[in-house]
Amino acid sequence: MSTAEESLEIKNLRHQRIQDDWEHREYIEVVTSAIQKMTSFLNVFDASCRSRLASLNQKLSALERKIDYIEARIEKQSATSKS
Amino acid sequence: MSTAEESLEIKNLRHQRIQDDWEHREYIEVVTSAIQKMTSFLNVFDASCRSRLASLNQKLSALERKIDYIEARIEKQSATSKS
Amino acid sequence: MSTAEESLEIKNLRHQRIQDDWEHREYIEVVTSAIQKMTSFLNVFDASCRSRLASLNQKLSALERKIDYIEARIEKQSATSKS
Repeated sequence: MSTAEESLEIKNLRHQRIQDDWEHREYIEVVTSAIQKMTSFLNVFDASCRSRLASLNQKLSALERKIDYIEARIEKQSATSKS
Repeated sequence: MSTAEESLEIKNLRHQRIQDDWEHREYIEVVTSAIQKMTSFLNVFDASCRSRLASLNQKLSALERKIDYIEARIEKQSATSKS
Repeated sequence: MSTAEESLEIKNLRHQRIQDDWEHREYIEVVTSAIQKMTSFLNVFDASCRSRLASLNQKLSALERKIDYIEARIEKQSATSKS
């Protein structure tokens, strides 16, 4: 390589390094933003699942109590009608 | 550094730059694919949770209606048997 | 560029390359760890959702059986009281 070629080569390498750095930074932003979006989706999704499951559990417990009450009444009616 | 050493050094840097670029591209592919897999898993999972919760809600509503009907019948029977 | 400047420039490029490499490795670790955390969260979350939904389904089925039994008893009582 002549000294002129070397100078050009060094300039190219320096230039490419800056370009690589930019691409790298852009990619970091894209990935970081994708991970943040997924994390915040997961937080919302987790909270929503918990609340929907808790609401279902509450409704189920209410039904269980109602059914226990109905069963008790039926037992009583059945006992009364037999006596 | 002698000019010969400099030439070699420049070749090394150019070579390393290409190698770094390849590793970087491979890594981008791995991360992008991991993010895509998680995103598609989340979509399927979200849809599946929604449908399972909706089905539970539907069953619960059906039970609630049945219980309301049973309660009304018991009330009626109780009123009839007292009269 | 003089040969001395070129030598310095080459040293800088080699130095920056090592620095870039370190930053890149650090970033890879951060992203890889973020993806691993999310994946393991998703596995735990998926298993937890499945088990909570299965438990709700089981409770619902138990209630459905109880209600069917209650309905049958009411039918019987109603038939008996009418006869």
